[in-house]
This record gives sequence, C-alpha cells and structure tokens, in this order.
Amino acid sequence: MSKAIELAKKGVDSNAGGPFGAVVVKNGEIIAEGYNKVTSNNDPTAHAEVVAIRNACKKLNSFQLEDCIIYTSCEPCPMCLGAIYWARPKKVYYACTRDDASHINFDDQFIYNEISKEINGRQIPFINLMRKEALTVFKNWTDKEDKTVY
Amino acid sequence: MSKAIELAKKGVDSNAGGPFGAVVVKNGEIIAEGYNKVTSNNDPTAHAEVVAIRNACKKLNSFQLEDCIIYTSCEPCPMCLGAIYWARPKKVYYACTRDDASHINFDDQFIYNEISKEINGRQIPFINLMRKEALTVFKNWTDKEDKTVY
Repeated sequence: MSKAIELAKKGVDSNAGGPFGAVVVKNGEIIAEGYNKVTSNNDPTAHAEVVAIRNACKKLNSFQLEDCIIYTSCEPCPMCLGAIYWARPKKVYYACTRDDASHINFDDQFIYNEISKEINGRQIPFINLMRKEALTVFKNWTDKEDKTVY
Repeated sequence: MSKAIELAKKGVDSNAGGPFGAVVVKNGEIIAEGYNKVTSNNDPTAHAEVVAIRNACKKLNSFQLEDCIIYTSCEPCPMCLGAIYWARPKKVYYACTRDDASHINFDDQFIYNEISKEINGRQIPFINLMRKEALTVFKNWTDKEDKTVY
C-alpha cells in the first residue's frame, strides 16, 4: 500500500491527474503499477486501478488477474469496481474511502447512486432502441463454436 | 445504432471478444467506434463502450464527451456505466438489455448487485488499510494550486 500511496503522490506532483495510485501484487511481488492519468492522457477511464489492471493483464498475458491482490490508495469508484469484478483478483486493499474522495470533490457517491437507479430514472437519459436487431448478434455469439468465453 | 450493431458482429466474426459494439456521435456524425476486445487484447476493461469513449476523447483532445451521444448495442455493464458518467455524454441509446446479456452468460447483474452492497459484504473481500497515510496525498491535491480539476 505504501507503493500505491507513493504513486498517488507521483501523479499529483507530475500533473498526471487526480491523487490516486494502485498496484497489483501476485505471489508477494508487485507486477504492475498505475496512477490516475485522466487529464494528462485525455482518458476518463485512466483511473489508477484501471491503469494498473491493464498493465498487470498485459504482463500476465491474461484477461484475468487470478490469485492477484490489488492495493489502491482510495476505495474504487463504480467504474473501477466493475473493472475489478471483470478482472477477478482475489482481494482488494484500499486506503481512503469514497467519503474522503467526496471531500476533495471526487463525487463517486453520485455515480454509485445513479447505478442503483432504474435505467429510466437516471440523470443521463438511457433510451432503448433496435433491441430486436441487436439480438441477432447475440444469437451469432451463441451459435459460434470457436469463441473464447469469459 | 445500426453501426454499433455492425461493430458487435464484426467483433464476433473476428474473434475480438464478446458480441458488443458502440459508437460516439457528435453533431450528427460518428466520431469514434469500439467493439469488445477483452479476450484478443487481454484487457478486461476493453468493453465496446470503454474503447469507443477512449477513442472519442483522443479525437476530441478532451477527457469529457460534451454534447456527445453514445449508441451501444447492449445496456452498459457497471464498469461502462461508470466510464459513461465520468465522460459525461448527454445521452445514451442502448439496444439489448442486461437480461439479454445474462441469457448469453454475461452476468452484469451480478456486478450490479455487488456494487450496491456495503463494502464489507462483497464476494471479493475489500479491506481498509493505511487510510491516514493516504489522506496526506489528498491534502497535497487540495493544496496544489496548478491542478486540473475534473
């Protein structure tokens, strides 16, 4: 966790983005690092955890973080939490909380609230369209014999 | 939306990943495309929406999708929903639903359920550690005068 916090500080000092860092550990060794690069990379998805997960997966040549532990300097936002669930590490350690993040104006709680809402009640409008046409591609997927399932 | 569905099919046919496509539209024009590349890129975050958002932001030289509309061939998973909220488009159109995704074994609903839970009740353990040390970096951020806020 010291390393994750150090990366958060590095991100702030270098104007990379918000004050967040993360590392991925496997077998007691740090295999990947990340810090927030949203504003410097013009990438709203470049949160510390996402960067660290992408680096770790590249290193492991896998889309899963089997037996890995993520250390992040702050409780993950919903996007990062989703990324963590898709990557499936075995455990996550976090330092600051979402309330701490909110106090410095990173309002993860707002997104947590929006995600829990019905799809028709959100602040960004979500509108259904062409479901029938899109379902044909799901059928292609189901019928496909050489697919990689994840 | 036809283009998003076409991209989903392209992803299936080329073994890129799951059957999902997305486009970002600004001023009536498609400015970026994406399809799922999780398994081919070994990147669990490479969902269609995330890929399209990253491409659109690169094109716009911005970490925000102001006045943009996202068309996605399936209701976004929590990770993509988080990414959408961080990118702040004005509207989202989606075709298939999370139930449709669940029927072909993409269990977004499981992650939706996990995200709504208290942090101590999740299937992946989340453990708090070194909050006090990490808060010093939040203080650095607050005190920083030349920061880019987002």
